[in-house]
Amino acid sequence: MSGNGQHTHGNGAGANGNGYKVPTGRAEWIVKRKAEAERTGDWNMSQMHFARKGLITEEMAFVAQKEKISAELVRSEVAKGTMIIPANINHVELEPMAIGVESLCKINANIGNSALVSNVDEELRKLHTAVHFGADTVMDLSTGGDIPMIREQILRHSPVPIGTVPLYEALSRVKRVEDLNIDLYLEVIEEQAQQGVDYFTIHAGVLIQYVPLVAKRITGIVSRGGAIMAQWMTAHHKQNFLYENFDRITKVMAKYDVSYSLGDGLRPGCVADASDEAQFAELKTLGELTRQAWKSDVQVMIEGPGHVPMDKIKEQVDKEVELCDGAPFYVLGPLVTDIAPGYDHITSAIGAAMIGWHGAAMLCYVTPKEHLGLPNEKDVKDGIIAYKIAAHAADIARHRPGARDRDDAISHARYTFDWDKQFALSLDPDTARGMHDETLPDDYYKEAAFCSMCGPKFCSMNWSSKVDEFNAKEHGLKKPDLTQIVTEQMALRS
Amino acid sequence: MSGNGQHTHGNGAGANGNGYKVPTGRAEWIVKRKAEAERTGDWNMSQMHFARKGLITEEMAFVAQKEKISAELVRSEVAKGTMIIPANINHVELEPMAIGVESLCKINANIGNSALVSNVDEELRKLHTAVHFGADTVMDLSTGGDIPMIREQILRHSPVPIGTVPLYEALSRVKRVEDLNIDLYLEVIEEQAQQGVDYFTIHAGVLIQYVPLVAKRITGIVSRGGAIMAQWMTAHHKQNFLYENFDRITKVMAKYDVSYSLGDGLRPGCVADASDEAQFAELKTLGELTRQAWKSDVQVMIEGPGHVPMDKIKEQVDKEVELCDGAPFYVLGPLVTDIAPGYDHITSAIGAAMIGWHGAAMLCYVTPKEHLGLPNEKDVKDGIIAYKIAAHAADIARHRPGARDRDDAISHARYTFDWDKQFALSLDPDTARGMHDETLPDDYYKEAAFCSMCGPKFCSMNWSSKVDEFNAKEHGLKKPDLTQIVTEQMALRS
Repeated sequence: MSGNGQHTHGNGAGANGNGYKVPTGRAEWIVKRKAEAERTGDWNMSQMHFARKGLITEEMAFVAQKEKISAELVRSEVAKGTMIIPANINHVELEPMAIGVESLCKINANIGNSALVSNVDEELRKLHTAVHFGADTVMDLSTGGDIPMIREQILRHSPVPIGTVPLYEALSRVKRVEDLNIDLYLEVIEEQAQQGVDYFTIHAGVLIQYVPLVAKRITGIVSRGGAIMAQWMTAHHKQNFLYENFDRITKVMAKYDVSYSLGDGLRPGCVADASDEAQFAELKTLGELTRQAWKSDVQVMIEGPGHVPMDKIKEQVDKEVELCDGAPFYVLGPLVTDIAPGYDHITSAIGAAMIGWHGAAMLCYVTPKEHLGLPNEKDVKDGIIAYKIAAHAADIARHRPGARDRDDAISHARYTFDWDKQFALSLDPDTARGMHDETLPDDYYKEAAFCSMCGPKFCSMNWSSKVDEFNAKEHGLKKPDLTQIVTEQMALRS
Repeated sequence: MSGNGQHTHGNGAGANGNGYKVPTGRAEWIVKRKAEAERTGDWNMSQMHFARKGLITEEMAFVAQKEKISAELVRSEVAKGTMIIPANINHVELEPMAIGVESLCKINANIGNSALVSNVDEELRKLHTAVHFGADTVMDLSTGGDIPMIREQILRHSPVPIGTVPLYEALSRVKRVEDLNIDLYLEVIEEQAQQGVDYFTIHAGVLIQYVPLVAKRITGIVSRGGAIMAQWMTAHHKQNFLYENFDRITKVMAKYDVSYSLGDGLRPGCVADASDEAQFAELKTLGELTRQAWKSDVQVMIEGPGHVPMDKIKEQVDKEVELCDGAPFYVLGPLVTDIAPGYDHITSAIGAAMIGWHGAAMLCYVTPKEHLGLPNEKDVKDGIIAYKIAAHAADIARHRPGARDRDDAISHARYTFDWDKQFALSLDPDTARGMHDETLPDDYYKEAAFCSMCGPKFCSMNWSSKVDEFNAKEHGLKKPDLTQIVTEQMALRS
């Protein structure tokens, strides 16, 4: 099987598509670190804690190799808070990865069942598909059935960090939203942290005083966590219990090195509601909570919207950087129009590419099924491909080193009519080959200097090669030599 | 059949999905205009010619109604050259439309066979699909079989302007590229103009002195017209015969009111080649040719790339406006990465949305089959939907009046769980409904306050409505009333 294959699936060992070695001994690294904690009594296991002590952990070194940046840069970014390495000490199957503006733009895939659809086998298939096509992290948003069992299965099979929204499991354990409380919540996060969840979305920034700000919105509160907390607060006339007990939560995070993904409970749910007072009021609070978490050396990223028209996308990043001191920005989409249910992987890939270019560190995918139903395996794949495109386009536009190499290699293969290389270097080789072969299936055409679009007499690249001959003969001008880049890129896909 | 249905298909009469009346008497307007020409001896039939004489034609009035702008604004924009109305006097089936920065962003669909695939029936089905889902213009790029017959059928069935690249038919009439000449070319454009083609892509800006500039490119010349002209010039060591005989071509354009679509023969074919010397040298020449055409009151738009990384997209528009005096910019994509053959409707919709926001007037779609084969009917549909999304997102970001109404209406329907309205207001109602019904097919669920994504206990909008009740009771705050917008938008889709 060709494809992206950035990850071996399941056991976390072996070579992968990016050409680096998967760590075989994460469990050993952690044993060593625990022994050290035993000795010193310092049980803060967070990467930020080590970074701030000046230590380069195995995870940091691994990430540096993967990103082709220096380990010291990784350490200093983690220490500052502008990069996170979500790596729960109990998720030993993990290949560590980094989220931050100094590293490549990442993508997350949401999977998980609902009370109405799907089961553990289907969710594991979605996990496999997501990882195969290049998801950098996966969130398990299950809300139905045996949530802990599904999560256990996902964690034990996942080489990528797993995120959850613990509020969902908490709610599943009570009858009504009003019955939620901090003790139950702490119990849930302790259990999930122990299982190995790498980051938690926590909606601690939705404060009771912000609730009236959503009245003027068309779509009110569309974040599930945000809406749950708002309903709890309005029912009890009390402040958000996650905000009130933030330090207690932080203690659990530090012990297992779970990273905060501070949820944007008031993100806009349509373009009309984008960048409003409610959204930015919460963002300001997320900034305060970031600084609070950093006091305990706990890693933080910040979640962002949602639905935002193109002219307001840059502002989203600027505000986040300003209010949250550059903590990595993890955004859902954003969708740049609301009129295309069934195609929201596209409406949102536009916004995602743009916000990635402006500095978002991770893009949470949206599938074609968004707003309509729970995604199935095909929807997961379609969402992933759209977001690989968005993140890669962002890396190119930000001029991240080497980001354009794969483009240059595939373009060279295209120009030289090397169809097999063109397929191999593409995001989805099987689909590319299938579309080509739909009209010209014979092997003969894999070396043909045309395709069915134009046929031999009307192929521009065919003529262009004659123009190259003219340029060489008349002007002594040679084409650029891309042999090395093509060879390197092909090696990464084999 | 619901859907976009902006156009009745074929006869050019009746109501359509945008709520305006299709002209029943375009043939009569033209008879009247010809009688006037008989009287005065002025046979320049171009909309620009009338506009510059201060006349508001029926086409201008019609377009003004459609765009909800004043007829005088349309006239003055057409007179200036910043808006065109491609409307050949022999294309009587046409519903006139405008391309320019003062009107809504438009999209074009390329259809047409190749020597290897497709026939007239299939091309007519593609035309129908393209127009049904909202193509504003269609280009017939046929290069195989009986080209004039296919074009005749397309013209006679098309309510939208039809564009062609006359060089293709010219080449089909000779054995080798070297055999092309201006007399043959003039014969072809005269025949096509007489049939009613509304705009011609003409690659008159690829000059012989620019040929060496492409040597350093990875993908050389990827425009078919550009590559043909380059090969002709290098074979003959002569200047581009379209450039040399530009005024003779212009005469034909004026007589039938065919608009120039000045082709970008040197557009970049990969992100590495974007914004290079070759591209901008040609663009400067296109600017000179624009001013030359305008001397004869002939309408002009300028074609643009291609493949461009996100950080260079705004520059493309800025240069075009500067070098071509604001003639409408008609761009292909651009693709923001090269690594996703099979998904280039997405790689390019990202660039298209952005360039539309920055001021491109029309976006030429790219289908999933780009670089791989001739698009079929499904590819045409997928391309159109991606580009309706891009153009609409551009209209929203440019704050074009009323552009967001449909978004607001669908968002309101979504928030109030009016599933049927949500489907009806979407770009592709059948697909949206199908995805929803995949898991919850019963009619009962069309009024359900949840979908299979979250189920009833985890639906944010469900909880949010309770928060609305709190805001109303405790703070006296009411939700915005969208009844009128929803009613208007629903009426447009009925």
